[in-house]
Amino acid sequence: MSPVYDRVALIGLGLIASSMAHAMRRWGLAGEIVGTARTAETRAIAREDGLCDRVTETAAEAVQGADLVVLCVPVGAMGAIAAEIGPHLAPGATVSDVGSVKRAVIDAVAPHLPDHVHFVPAHPLAGTEHSGPRAGFAELFKNRWCLIVPAEGSDIQAVARLRRLWEGMGANVDEMDADHHDLVLAVTSHTPHLIAYTMVGVADDLRRVTNSEVIKYSAAGFRDFTRIAASDPTMWRDVFLNNKDATLEILGRFTEELFALQRAIRTGDGDLLHAYFTRTRAIRRSIIEAGQDTSAPDFGRAATPAGETQPKQAARS
Amino acid sequence: MSPVYDRVALIGLGLIASSMAHAMRRWGLAGEIVGTARTAETRAIAREDGLCDRVTETAAEAVQGADLVVLCVPVGAMGAIAAEIGPHLAPGATVSDVGSVKRAVIDAVAPHLPDHVHFVPAHPLAGTEHSGPRAGFAELFKNRWCLIVPAEGSDIQAVARLRRLWEGMGANVDEMDADHHDLVLAVTSHTPHLIAYTMVGVADDLRRVTNSEVIKYSAAGFRDFTRIAASDPTMWRDVFLNNKDATLEILGRFTEELFALQRAIRTGDGDLLHAYFTRTRAIRRSIIEAGQDTSAPDFGRAATPAGETQPKQAARS
Repeated sequence: MSPVYDRVALIGLGLIASSMAHAMRRWGLAGEIVGTARTAETRAIAREDGLCDRVTETAAEAVQGADLVVLCVPVGAMGAIAAEIGPHLAPGATVSDVGSVKRAVIDAVAPHLPDHVHFVPAHPLAGTEHSGPRAGFAELFKNRWCLIVPAEGSDIQAVARLRRLWEGMGANVDEMDADHHDLVLAVTSHTPHLIAYTMVGVADDLRRVTNSEVIKYSAAGFRDFTRIAASDPTMWRDVFLNNKDATLEILGRFTEELFALQRAIRTGDGDLLHAYFTRTRAIRRSIIEAGQDTSAPDFGRAATPAGETQPKQAARS
Repeated sequence: MSPVYDRVALIGLGLIASSMAHAMRRWGLAGEIVGTARTAETRAIAREDGLCDRVTETAAEAVQGADLVVLCVPVGAMGAIAAEIGPHLAPGATVSDVGSVKRAVIDAVAPHLPDHVHFVPAHPLAGTEHSGPRAGFAELFKNRWCLIVPAEGSDIQAVARLRRLWEGMGANVDEMDADHHDLVLAVTSHTPHLIAYTMVGVADDLRRVTNSEVIKYSAAGFRDFTRIAASDPTMWRDVFLNNKDATLEILGRFTEELFALQRAIRTGDGDLLHAYFTRTRAIRRSIIEAGQDTSAPDFGRAATPAGETQPKQAARS
């Protein structure tokens, strides 16, 4: 199979970029994979693991001769990277990114790109709570959605080619405009993350319940929040600072609903609570039917994460 | 191995009771298991599946001659059940429950129990988003905590015997007083559930983002909330109505913190956000070290819940 791109440059080598490297290699999608990262430590790990065919010291060097450049850095760092690589981009190259926010990335990146390249922003809706160059794996994008957000006047063929790359890595691809993307993600990702961070912060900060109690008894629901709240702090700081309006809009709606439920608890309105909790069950069912989550109880989580294989012997009575 | 109890009566046959039946049978903890449920449908399923040794039509009948009676009904139904079984309890029997709230259960149940029985409330911190008599499995309690909340003057031997039963089913057991239990659970379970229900409700109700978008793109974080928000509506209505004070206290703290983070987003205070998001990571680590969750990315969730095993072929460029 011939590759979709001859040379792909990955700028930043965290969870998404390292997963792309594994996936492109496994399915023969790139002739050569060049990578670079801000820290010497990450570059050293990438070299040691053979993550890319070549690891360069700078982004300017990495993009030379690449027909696809993918910015895989936190949203707040995209503008500076674009300014650095702009003069070194090959004519006809496609520049893309994997940022969780699209309007702010387009505003930050586009002004630095020469006319002779195609800018096709994208966002794979995939990730785990782990980060860094060793967190990646080839199947991360399988059956997940990748949203391509063509900038105004994006070349149709460049968009189609990027779509083939993402489909080759197992993703389903949709196109969407930047503002709608940012609102959809505020609902499906950004606000849920902020809420999870907040709940975990509250638990951590209580005087009357100890941390060891919170940790021991977390299986009752709380631990699901801690997974989300373990995501990369820099990435998420940048998401909130760069998708401010949509996040604040959805947070406003969330607070309004929360107050309505809080009031129902205070006044003892069991019917309202029951009706609300019944309605939310249907969405879960739809997500499982759409293949976006497992129906196994508890996400199919192992019953004995600590490695026990036998229950304790029952004591005699 | 001799059983811990000669005859155990399970009142209500949902997820917890059916898991207890499987576990007690597998590990030989009960001489005989008798069960009953409110609806004829549940009783019929239990009979068809052979879930218990005997299924009775009424709770009064089920408790006759039992040396352990476990109330496994929603918290709001406990008082009525206690009134019904009170006159039929055998002298020396232990009455326990599995309710997620303890103060309200004690207040509702204790007045109906005769002096010749031991009342030892308990709460296994285990569950899944599934409910009903077919949702149970023997390993549900393995490596999970069960909190025993002895009522004032509980018999020490009765408490020790109930502890052996739960340990026999694989649980770790702690003792705690009722008010502290209700506060700890408000943090680790009740407030997180209310927040998850609210977030899912907001997403369901938005006009500008369609439900199909929410469902397709849920893997970005939202889907974890939907699992929690798929839990049994009746059980959760009763939890909030019966743990009102503690839940409202924690909700108040949550809202306060959420407003602080919201303000940081509005004013662009990236340092505050970054510091907050860094702090919450540590709790996740502790939960994994305590064996209360898996460290596998995404809870070890299968990458292809829809059953795909091969990625799409990469299109040729």
